[in-house]
Amino acid sequence: MGHGGVILDLFVMLAAAKVLGEICERLRIPGVIGEMLAGVAIGPYALGWIHPGEMHAQIAQIGAVFLLFTIGLETKPREMLRVGGVASLVALLGVAVPFAGGLLVMHLTGHPVIESVFVGAAMVATSVGITARVLSDIGMLAHRASRVILGAAVIDDVLGMLVLAAVASLAMGHIEWVRLGLLFVEAIGFVVLIAWVGSRVASRLHRPVFRMKSRRPGFAFALLLCLGLSVAAGKVGMAAIIGAFLAGLALAEKKEDWDLGERIEGVSEFLSPFFFVVLGMEVNLSAFNEPSVLGLAVLVTVVAILGKLVGCGAGAYRLGFMDSLRVGVGMIPRGEVGLIVALLGMQTGAISNAVYGVVLFMVVVTTVLPPFVLAGLFRGERPESNAAEPIGC
Amino acid sequence: MGHGGVILDLFVMLAAAKVLGEICERLRIPGVIGEMLAGVAIGPYALGWIHPGEMHAQIAQIGAVFLLFTIGLETKPREMLRVGGVASLVALLGVAVPFAGGLLVMHLTGHPVIESVFVGAAMVATSVGITARVLSDIGMLAHRASRVILGAAVIDDVLGMLVLAAVASLAMGHIEWVRLGLLFVEAIGFVVLIAWVGSRVASRLHRPVFRMKSRRPGFAFALLLCLGLSVAAGKVGMAAIIGAFLAGLALAEKKEDWDLGERIEGVSEFLSPFFFVVLGMEVNLSAFNEPSVLGLAVLVTVVAILGKLVGCGAGAYRLGFMDSLRVGVGMIPRGEVGLIVALLGMQTGAISNAVYGVVLFMVVVTTVLPPFVLAGLFRGERPESNAAEPIGC
Repeated sequence: MGHGGVILDLFVMLAAAKVLGEICERLRIPGVIGEMLAGVAIGPYALGWIHPGEMHAQIAQIGAVFLLFTIGLETKPREMLRVGGVASLVALLGVAVPFAGGLLVMHLTGHPVIESVFVGAAMVATSVGITARVLSDIGMLAHRASRVILGAAVIDDVLGMLVLAAVASLAMGHIEWVRLGLLFVEAIGFVVLIAWVGSRVASRLHRPVFRMKSRRPGFAFALLLCLGLSVAAGKVGMAAIIGAFLAGLALAEKKEDWDLGERIEGVSEFLSPFFFVVLGMEVNLSAFNEPSVLGLAVLVTVVAILGKLVGCGAGAYRLGFMDSLRVGVGMIPRGEVGLIVALLGMQTGAISNAVYGVVLFMVVVTTVLPPFVLAGLFRGERPESNAAEPIGC
Repeated sequence: MGHGGVILDLFVMLAAAKVLGEICERLRIPGVIGEMLAGVAIGPYALGWIHPGEMHAQIAQIGAVFLLFTIGLETKPREMLRVGGVASLVALLGVAVPFAGGLLVMHLTGHPVIESVFVGAAMVATSVGITARVLSDIGMLAHRASRVILGAAVIDDVLGMLVLAAVASLAMGHIEWVRLGLLFVEAIGFVVLIAWVGSRVASRLHRPVFRMKSRRPGFAFALLLCLGLSVAAGKVGMAAIIGAFLAGLALAEKKEDWDLGERIEGVSEFLSPFFFVVLGMEVNLSAFNEPSVLGLAVLVTVVAILGKLVGCGAGAYRLGFMDSLRVGVGMIPRGEVGLIVALLGMQTGAISNAVYGVVLFMVVVTTVLPPFVLAGLFRGERPESNAAEPIGC
């Protein structure tokens, strides 16, 4: 069985996450921040106890998948569809405004157009994992603003995937409109298919699944659906976690029938801290010793934050000021898609090493900051306060 | 988030495990056999859908750790101590008889003494994972024979570790008795410490743990104890799964107090199939095309089976014929320790490539066969039938 190895790494990561999570909870800061700080502390740029490799990235990904699956399980599709119009507007404006802002600020600071386009593209895709975790921790997943955020994150991911495909073909020299169109149809088709017929197909499968002789057929089916739709989402160019979220949605309507008990939560609560710890391990702020690069990084980050705050907030204007603000803040975190865009740009020579560092800085700051603010914005709200109130869309 | 990769592999492994597990259950064969067959089917020597690498081995190890942890949680330490005498005798004879048998059969078939010693040593250590899973599947963990098997497996692991250390120093040219003595004291000390004071220390920690602000402190504590003692077991030279089992034992006495619900079971039920699938992926029987090697392999395997059957069965003679037989069959599976011994022997030139293949054959067959028999041996027994009946020891 080996002597330490992976088990030792898991122990160190989980122990650090729980200790710093507890300290944050006592300071009334969301525990997820403690988990990321744990990653920063034990990671290669601080104590150096753990040097993240492929295994850590994989455990982190599995953790993110199960986190979004349990979030999906808590979200009734019918409630999601009721905020569909607002969520679409939030996603659209939340893609357009940061893209335009990023392009403009880069171009105005004297960077070439192609580099500016890449930075703008890297500012598009929201990473919903952190926001979902905070909303779950404070018991606000059923809140109207939360439903808008989750719905917008799904649509945002389709748009982000298209932007990624567009800049990828731009890097090759020309945009292939036919391929882009096909990708769009594929991704939209996937989301619509699962969202519309997922619940019904799952209900149909209930009887044959429970006719099986194996123990806990419902739990096994849920695991396979989660993993299967994560893989399928990847195949149509979307993030695996979006597939996992849709899988959760498909089972959410009749969750009790599937006899999942606390089993899925156990899997998610065990694995998802590794996602946040590994996120933290990648933080290396010491790379910004040069003032001019740091200045650009701060500028781009401010634009990235304002872009989502203004774009998504404006998209949600019908919900009133407070809910718009909640939606805007909840959509701020950027994730790995931004990094993929930047990496692609660097590999094709479109953006410089320094600008890659700038994008990395933006991703880290937009990921770490919002949890501090988000929980406070929901203070005093009752969890389901607006759940029954329909939104005109 | 990548496009497939680890999530795709998990999906394929789990789907194959569940499908073949279901088929086995319908044929009234333990599902774990289906999971191993799934590994054989999708592995590199059959369909070749998955080529096991480091990641697969690591997920398998984590699965085995949580399997043994949940088995430990189902086992009351007081019940274990009551069968301590019988379990010790089972472990001792279960080490001595296969060692002598292996040494003898190799020497009589004309192999040099050093090669014979290595093969004998490779036949010593029981791998309790499979047996524990079968006993858990048929609801017989509380049975007297099961408690003897689990107790003997812990002691067996201490002895197996010593034999490994002995042949390792033998391979260097001489046996370091002082180092062996220290290892023995360390391992015994570890087991006795956890088994004796583990429950009491855990009870003491209950109040401070539940004073924490984080959500589900009991679940977090259980995860950390499981991983921590697995690492510690590795540090004293034992298998990680034995540490996990002892961690489960320490919490078993007052399991309900820790508010684990079905969470830990969820983790174990998700991860442990990967252990069995990966075991199956390593099966390559086509390597035995040469009749003389196959003959030796069959001979050694028969001795390995009879060695545990007779040795462990004799150790449990006080329990009567049926329980002795159950204990004997339950102790047959050999695992990775045997392979480590053989690998060490091959690396130091003590054993040939062909004999390494023979040991591999023995490990595979002793792992795959017992589940077919074991469930049948418990047919008609009530789960807790002998739990209250004390055994003179």
